Amino acid sequence: MSVDNRGPVSFDLIEQNTDSHARAGVLHTPHGDVPTPVFCPVGTQATVKTLSPRDLEELGPRQILSNTYHLYLRPGAELIARMGGLHQFMRWNRAILTDSGGFQVFSLKALRKLDDDGVTFRSHIDGSEHRFTPEKVVEIQELLGSDIAMVLDECAEPHDYAYNVEATRRTHLWAERCLKAHTRPDQAMFGIVQGGIFPDLRAESARILMEMDFPGYAIGGLSVGESKRDMHRILDVLAPLLPQSKPRYLMGVGSPEDLVEGVWRGVDMFDCVLPTRLARNGTVLTPQGRLNLRNAANTEDPRPIVEGCGCYTCQNFTRAYLRHLLITKEILGLHLNTIHNIHFMLQMMRDIRQAILEHRFAAYREAFWADYRVVDERVRAENKAAYKQHRLAAGR
Amino acid sequence: MSVDNRGPVSFDLIEQNTDSHARAGVLHTPHGDVPTPVFCPVGTQATVKTLSPRDLEELGPRQILSNTYHLYLRPGAELIARMGGLHQFMRWNRAILTDSGGFQVFSLKALRKLDDDGVTFRSHIDGSEHRFTPEKVVEIQELLGSDIAMVLDECAEPHDYAYNVEATRRTHLWAERCLKAHTRPDQAMFGIVQGGIFPDLRAESARILMEMDFPGYAIGGLSVGESKRDMHRILDVLAPLLPQSKPRYLMGVGSPEDLVEGVWRGVDMFDCVLPTRLARNGTVLTPQGRLNLRNAANTEDPRPIVEGCGCYTCQNFTRAYLRHLLITKEILGLHLNTIHNIHFMLQMMRDIRQAILEHRFAAYREAFWADYRVVDERVRAENKAAYKQHRLAAGR
Repeated sequence: MSVDNRGPVSFDLIEQNTDSHARAGVLHTPHGDVPTPVFCPVGTQATVKTLSPRDLEELGPRQILSNTYHLYLRPGAELIARMGGLHQFMRWNRAILTDSGGFQVFSLKALRKLDDDGVTFRSHIDGSEHRFTPEKVVEIQELLGSDIAMVLDECAEPHDYAYNVEATRRTHLWAERCLKAHTRPDQAMFGIVQGGIFPDLRAESARILMEMDFPGYAIGGLSVGESKRDMHRILDVLAPLLPQSKPRYLMGVGSPEDLVEGVWRGVDMFDCVLPTRLARNGTVLTPQGRLNLRNAANTEDPRPIVEGCGCYTCQNFTRAYLRHLLITKEILGLHLNTIHNIHFMLQMMRDIRQAILEHRFAAYREAFWADYRVVDERVRAENKAAYKQHRLAAGR
Repeated sequence: MSVDNRGPVSFDLIEQNTDSHARAGVLHTPHGDVPTPVFCPVGTQATVKTLSPRDLEELGPRQILSNTYHLYLRPGAELIARMGGLHQFMRWNRAILTDSGGFQVFSLKALRKLDDDGVTFRSHIDGSEHRFTPEKVVEIQELLGSDIAMVLDECAEPHDYAYNVEATRRTHLWAERCLKAHTRPDQAMFGIVQGGIFPDLRAESARILMEMDFPGYAIGGLSVGESKRDMHRILDVLAPLLPQSKPRYLMGVGSPEDLVEGVWRGVDMFDCVLPTRLARNGTVLTPQGRLNLRNAANTEDPRPIVEGCGCYTCQNFTRAYLRHLLITKEILGLHLNTIHNIHFMLQMMRDIRQAILEHRFAAYREAFWADYRVVDERVRAENKAAYKQHRLAAGR
């Protein structure tokens, strides 16, 4: 399964802060090194929405995430394999992480049927029936050829204890089967800790998975409806339990504030559609919080989104122009906003890493919170739920 | 009105072929020289759809067209003037040509009311009432600050003789008033020949406008429903009449075949939304004709759109990937197709110019027609009419 005794993907811890669980390291992958902590932009359907590979290269992410569920349905994993694999297909030569597809399938609620062996579901595109088993999602991810594959897991409703007992049991069974099925020597497979908002289930899940000795551990089932307080509580539980020498990946998270708080609690890897999705919605990120470019206040504003920002968008365009592009539904607006938001997240992570290395992350965190205004948590949850329905219906 | 006795925009004829009316020249503008014949991509709403200025710079057009009607409605010409003018607003430092807005207004049929003084119309966006007069469209274009402005003209139904008599009379009146109203010293204003498919009206229109001594002459009212044969007949009439020393601009044209046939008949400038619109529809241009990337035949095709094509798209991506992007409605697909189609048109014009300079344009034309398969003319006319309705409704 591995090309040397460290495996195809390995992790070097470079700095462990003592005033928090924050860490800096390097993830070595078959497609280059990834300094951590790292934020991975999401390229759901073999493209980070609105960006070409050369736009991405300029922005400089070292790793992106693609979605197995979506690529399995369209264009199909076999086709991608025949075209030389996902890297070649989408012309991206840095690291790629794929999820297992489980999260999307479990989001299909009415369209899926679950048993211990796997999950049968209907495509959100054409209603056709499909089945994912642990072996199947390993096979698909091996066909895609990502650098890091994920085990099939069950993401349960986070507040339902009985359901989480059942879901973690199944998740551990499946993790074992995924490990057994995995053969590709140039791909690593990470385990996923589940257990909802329940510290005892989370600790047990971490313990069981650690016995299987994965090269990295993801924390799943967070940012799925629980409060920020609960999310932080679970991260606080896991930080001292997970092995220091392995990367920790908080799946599907997050916002700028989630990055700061996740890193503080020992997380090394993040992925989230937030910056790209917000961008297409006309919302851009600033050190003071989110800015909706559609607002009339921007109509004649000659300033860039963020003064001094080094991205192509801020170096060239006014808020007035960006607003005009949004109002007239011009694709260029979505593209320029996406460039800014991805740059913002990546630059933030570069700054965080530097702060960790220089033992001043606590000060960074304090300065961040002094400036950054968070969107009301309830408003955000509502938006997210509404968008999710819309997105599944539209196949995005 | 002019900065020297040649005016802000001047034309040098470099080569006049003797076996056709084909010419090569250079148009000098306040924003750089434009080798002719030239194809101008269209940036209707202050952006060439899906492309950033740096994408455009790489593709290398020396001049683009923007639409006065659309910019007048959104974001407004005064706003653009306050933001430093259209070049600065959209960050495009090469030449810009603006139309007068007349063509769009006359397309609004049910929404407009015409008299000798001007035209009153309702916005296709919100139904609000507006009025264009010759003086008004000059003022708007001066606020935009394009390098070349166009007079207000009336584009009549091309087969209606009586209507064209009336429309040319009004067009000439308005041309005179536009010239009188024009004050901006760093902007040229071109006249527009009208007269439908009627040689006598066209000749008369050319004669009257030439007396006004414009620095360039456009041919309007073609490619609006008449046959290709009629279009060519009118170009054949005008070729020997229009002054050799002034640029000739065939408005709203055209396809690759229109470029070849237009240049053959002495046209120096073209603009058309065709390459960008086709691209967003999934249709790309090749030396053999149009290719619909959505076709199932492309599902697993590892070839680029055109072997040996120098554009970013063909240098990097397979037809299979481009089809996947279209099927999954990914914006990147529209962007990559647009890059290819604009490159195709610009490269074609560079090749045509070289052929003219080397006295082998007749051979180029023959070779072009040996390879290129034209879409059925009726099918194309129907598609165009259908799309136009849709576009006006959607404000694009």
